Amino acid sequence: MKLATLANGTPDGRLHVVSRDLTKAAPAKAAATLQAAMENWEGLEAGLKAEHDAVNAGTAEGLINFDPAKALAPLPRAWQWLDGSAFDSHGELMDAILGIKKEKTGRPLMYQGVSDKFYGPTEDARFMSEADDIDFEGEFGIITDRVPMGTDKATAMKHIRLLVQINDWSLRRLAPIEMKTGFGWVQAKPPCSMAPVAVTPDELGANWRDGRVDLELSVYWNDAKFGGANGYHMSCGFDDLVSHAAYSRDLVAGTVIGSGTVSNKNYREIGSSCIAERRGIEKLDTGTPTTPFMTFGETVRMEARNGDGSVLFGAIHQKVVKA
Amino acid sequence: MKLATLANGTPDGRLHVVSRDLTKAAPAKAAATLQAAMENWEGLEAGLKAEHDAVNAGTAEGLINFDPAKALAPLPRAWQWLDGSAFDSHGELMDAILGIKKEKTGRPLMYQGVSDKFYGPTEDARFMSEADDIDFEGEFGIITDRVPMGTDKATAMKHIRLLVQINDWSLRRLAPIEMKTGFGWVQAKPPCSMAPVAVTPDELGANWRDGRVDLELSVYWNDAKFGGANGYHMSCGFDDLVSHAAYSRDLVAGTVIGSGTVSNKNYREIGSSCIAERRGIEKLDTGTPTTPFMTFGETVRMEARNGDGSVLFGAIHQKVVKA
Repeated sequence: MKLATLANGTPDGRLHVVSRDLTKAAPAKAAATLQAAMENWEGLEAGLKAEHDAVNAGTAEGLINFDPAKALAPLPRAWQWLDGSAFDSHGELMDAILGIKKEKTGRPLMYQGVSDKFYGPTEDARFMSEADDIDFEGEFGIITDRVPMGTDKATAMKHIRLLVQINDWSLRRLAPIEMKTGFGWVQAKPPCSMAPVAVTPDELGANWRDGRVDLELSVYWNDAKFGGANGYHMSCGFDDLVSHAAYSRDLVAGTVIGSGTVSNKNYREIGSSCIAERRGIEKLDTGTPTTPFMTFGETVRMEARNGDGSVLFGAIHQKVVKA
Repeated sequence: MKLATLANGTPDGRLHVVSRDLTKAAPAKAAATLQAAMENWEGLEAGLKAEHDAVNAGTAEGLINFDPAKALAPLPRAWQWLDGSAFDSHGELMDAILGIKKEKTGRPLMYQGVSDKFYGPTEDARFMSEADDIDFEGEFGIITDRVPMGTDKATAMKHIRLLVQINDWSLRRLAPIEMKTGFGWVQAKPPCSMAPVAVTPDELGANWRDGRVDLELSVYWNDAKFGGANGYHMSCGFDDLVSHAAYSRDLVAGTVIGSGTVSNKNYREIGSSCIAERRGIEKLDTGTPTTPFMTFGETVRMEARNGDGSVLFGAIHQKVVKA
């Protein structure tokens, strides 16, 4: 099943069911918003699935052409956004470029981020200053229904209801300053963006396995290919991340959890999902990072193709602008 | 003006206007919930103030006796909770007891915390295990209306619409483990609690000054006085904290920002607002912390008295229970 949220003048938008090929959509009857759907997923899933079948068959009521430019983030705001950092090769390059040695704990890495706004897939991303070193970060993510405190890994898997694709904007000048306090990031992590469509895990077939998305995340900076890392190579799965997050709190329905920047060990061949990583490679190779960060007016595009070559979540395609 | 939220079966509860002496309340007519009030504060403030006058005069429609035991947190859930750590003497003791040396940056310290739930003032606080070292942290906090990205300190002050009193629950076993990653806290910071009543700054008279609450926060552990630190001694004011938070993001209406644990330099005389601080003092004085953390069934009470001796926000009075 594929779901998107179209703008209707309210903060949560209007939930739509989207055809598998992303060409058609119809307003969901089972729930007005994705947040409402997450709060009663078990009760609403069958109805939404039937609506999805009708959209695919072209028989749904209110069928329209699906225009990603009119889409908000599938969940335009969430009560909680927790981002992991589950790709070890990303962590190694970040340590190199930020000059920070993270202590290895054997535990998943995770921080709490701002969640009251997720940019829509084609919305301009607003920043105060290029001097803050504006960077994109391509990620996969999941959305849970309510997860009780103390949920174990096996049960956590069942609470992963939707998969999403995320651009976790970062301000690299501020990241190491905030990390050194131990308090995590506030200024360095403005709102993230989401690709237009959230999908149920079954849409990936065998490419959803071990709580991981086994697909390439293709990243383009100003339309030039920048990276194509595969989402499978997480040191722990999303099930681990959910269980980790729920250790001492109930996870509210509609909690969004990110994988961290998708990265593979052969980064020199396949490229990176963020600029800081490429700078880390340059630092390792030559001692000096040379790739600059983003400037106002530049764009980033991110998309993932499913096993059959179709674009799975639709594309994030954003321009960086001055706030 | 004093505002509280009474339970009505919905997550956001029902906003009530509360008399200055905390004995009477009436359902607010200007807004059904505090979140709705924060989203249109300028438009609604005068109406709410008139309702507050009527409650104080005993002439408000629907007047009831105010029962704090039926109160939720004034804002039972928020789109954003950011906690500062603005009391230097607290930071010094925490460095001592956690064995972590935070780098001094000259910038406000702040982390993003879980915001989808704030415990009500008399609600049991649920934890998985005493072995996680359960601790209370007494704080003051503020609630803003919408603050645009890049707001300076002087303008930030005008966006501070309400003051609240907070218990920021912490799991001390996990705090240093998470700090060492640089990612901040997830497991170490379960949901916080709020005292029953939020107040406009004018309710404090001269005791709201320089963006600080110049009042003692009295903390009782199992009914024995544990601490009585004054809220004025912040290294930066709430106006600085708001401006810091808004550096690279719009602050959504209803953003809650905390002071960090209230602490004064003469902590040996006046006591502490959390157990970890007392353990830090013990470590400094004798080399060995001896005060244990909380056990299931124990209680904490926190309240602040206004200049005239009246209880300002009502009391937080919670029991720690096994989840």
